Parts: sequence; C-alpha cells; structure tokens
Amino acid sequence: MDLIPNNSLKTATPQEGRELALKMARLVIKATQPDGEVRTRLRPEYAESSDSLIAIGQVVATEFATIAAANDYWR
Amino acid sequence: MDLIPNNSLKTATPQEGRELALKMARLVIKATQPDGEVRTRLRPEYAESSDSLIAIGQVVATEFATIAAANDYWR
Amino acid sequence: MDLIPNNSLKTATPQEGRELALKMARLVIKATQPDGEVRTRLRPEYAESSDSLIAIGQVVATEFATIAAANDYWR
Amino acid sequence: MDLIPNNSLKTATPQEGRELALKMARLVIKATQPDGEVRTRLRPEYAESSDSLIAIGQVVATEFATIAAANDYWR
Amino acid sequence: MDLIPNNSLKTATPQEGRELALKMARLVIKATQPDGEVRTRLRPEYAESSDSLIAIGQVVATEFATIAAANDYWR
Amino acid sequence: MDLIPNNSLKTATPQEGRELALKMARLVIKATQPDGEVRTRLRPEYAESSDSLIAIGQVVATEFATIAAANDYWR
Repeated sequence: MDLIPNNSLKTATPQEGRELALKMARLVIKATQPDGEVRTRLRPEYAESSDSLIAIGQVVATEFATIAAANDYWR
Repeated sequence: MDLIPNNSLKTATPQEGRELALKMARLVIKATQPDGEVRTRLRPEYAESSDSLIAIGQVVATEFATIAAANDYWR
Repeated sequence: MDLIPNNSLKTATPQEGRELALKMARLVIKATQPDGEVRTRLRPEYAESSDSLIAIGQVVATEFATIAAANDYWR
Repeated sequence: MDLIPNNSLKTATPQEGRELALKMARLVIKATQPDGEVRTRLRPEYAESSDSLIAIGQVVATEFATIAAANDYWR
Repeated sequence: MDLIPNNSLKTATPQEGRELALKMARLVIKATQPDGEVRTRLRPEYAESSDSLIAIGQVVATEFATIAAANDYWR
Repeated sequence: MDLIPNNSLKTATPQEGRELALKMARLVIKATQPDGEVRTRLRPEYAESSDSLIAIGQVVATEFATIAAANDYWR
C-alpha cells in the first residue's frame, strides 16, 4: 500500500509540503484501518470533535517538521 | 485550499513566526473540517476547556519549532 | 497581540529561557481565549489536575527545545 | 525479541521508511504486551476509534522523523 | 523561582542529564501550581495512574532530548 | 537510582538502541513510582489498554530519537 505519494519527501513549495503532511497522516490511518466503511463511519467522530481536530493538527505538525527539514526549509 | 499564508515559512521576526504557527495550526483544522458552521459550534468546546487550550499550545509549539529552524532562529 | 516578550528568542541564561518558554506557552492560550474572566475560571481546572499540569509541562518542554537551540544551548 | 527488522534504520526509499516506522511502532507494543491473544482482542478497540488511530499516526510520525534523518532524507 | 538547578544544561554524564530532566519537569509543575499542599494531594492521582506515569515519561523524554543535545550527547 | 543502564547513550546497534529506549522509559516510571507493588498492580491497566500501549510507543519513539542522534544513527 502507498504510504507516500510519489515515494518522495521533496515538494516544490511549503504549501505542497503541508499537503503532503496531511496525506501522509491520512495514509497511516488507512494502513491501520483499511476498511473504508469504518473510516467513513468514524469521520463525524473526529471532524466534529475539537480535541480530535487538535490531535490531527499535532500529527500534521510533526509530519511537516520532517518534510520541511527534507526540503531544507525551501530556502 | 491555502495551508500556509504567502506559501512561505520566512518571517521577519519571532512574533510573526508565532502568528504564522497559530495560522498554520488553524488552517489544518479548517482543511479537516471545512464547514464553518461546525467550527463555530466547536469554538466554546475548546476555548472554555483548559485541556483543549493546552493541546492547542502543544500544536503551536510544534509548528513554531519548524518555523524557527526555517528562519535560522532569526539570528 | 504580543506573543513573544521583546520579540526575541535570545535569553542570557537557561533560567531565563525556561521563563520565556512558560510565557510563550501562556500567550498562545491567551491568544486563543482572550477573555480574562474565562481564563481565571479555568485556572483551578488545570492547576488542580495532575494530568493538566503534566500536559503544561509537555508544552513548556517543547517551547524550551526551540529556545535552547536558538541560544545554541548557552554554550 | 526483534525490535527493528534487519537491525537497521537504512531504507532504500521514503516508502520503505514509512513501512519501517509502522513496524517499529508495532514492535514496541508487542514488546510491552507479548500476549498475542490480548493484542488481537485490543485490535477493534483502536482500529475503530478515531482518537486511537490519530494517536498511532503521532507515533508513526515520530518514528519516521528519526528514520528520515538516519537516511539523510533520501536526498 | 528556580526553574533549572545551577542555571545550566551542562551535566557530567547521561545519568545526571536524566536527573536534570526529571527536576526541570517537576519545577514547571511547581511554577504552575506553587501550593505545596495541592501538589501533595495530587501525588497519588498521578503516581497510581499508569496513563499519568506514561505522560510524565513523555515530558522527561522531551526535556532530556534538549539536555542531551546541549551536552553534545556526552560524546 | 539508576536512570540509564551503564550511564551511556552509546549502543552497538539500532536494536540495542531500541532496548535502551524501552529501559529508559521504564526507569522514569520507576523513579516516579518507586513502589514495586503499585507498579505491578498497574501493569494490566496499561498492558490491556490500546491507548496506554500507543502512549508507551510515543515515549519510546521520543527516547529513541535522542539515542539514535547520540549514535549518529549507527551510520
């Protein structure tokens, strides 16, 4: 199963780096819970809970730290 | 959808770096829950819960670590 | 709103770095919940909960990591 | 007990790095709870809870940060 | 209030670095909850809860990462 | 009390680095809750809770990040 789109941490811009961070976070959840119906059922559970949304923000921030370093912060 | 204002991690000062960290954290939540009405409904849930406020502080600290490194700590 | 006192990550000593970490963590909470009365009402909620106190410790540790790096660990 | 497949952090690609991160995270859980029956019983508990799935995403992101650095970000 | 013993991140050994991490974590809690009686009352709450003990482990690990970097990993 | 076996972050291999991370995480819990009977009583509480097991995985990942850097990623 695909865990990183294009199998690369390189992105052209910070915006694309954020999009990659979001995708990488989602793909880990998909790998752990491959059943699409269960994931669909869980969606309102996290999308309408502020604590879940904040926790997702934490995961994305952590993934992005790695992506940003890999791209030498797009300097 | 915009995930980083100006598509850049560069800021002139640490203060602007903190503001960017706050914005980046919010934009991930917006990307995950695009319905503005739901986000408005959730606001009291996190803004009046000390644990949610602390968790937001954790996300902002993590985003800021990346922004600070990207700006070579404004040295 | 002020998010970093003196708009600087530079401090003379590790002790001042810790104080800055505490202040930066508090200022994010203030930015998210600007109503001083609500923050005062929340105080016993976190100051008398061991889990909240530990979570605050986690935020401060994360902010301090950035401040310490910015000061080249006061070497 | 094996805690890292092949006793190495080196991987050929980011995709393999993500797979290693997932395995390393699982092996710590296995080391802490060696009873396979208990782990099987716990599976629906985390695979059908959005908060558990997000927390797993956090662990994998943290393991991956180390693996990515070990591989110099596959640059 | 003292937030870092000896106002220094330097330690002679990794063991002393761990002790410093534990002290730094405790001093933040003390700064947030200065009332010694409250802290004493909270002690069984966290010392007999596995989740609180694990969360303390997380804070100490984060503080130690900074201390270890400050000591160039005692190499 | 011993907080790091052999008072060293150096290990011969990544596998030994993971074992050290597990031990370091456990020793912090032991330092915070020195009563062996209480720790034994808590064992089923965390070993049969998926969320506790995931949280332990998070601590170990954080400790390992430091150990891996200290060993220059065993390159």
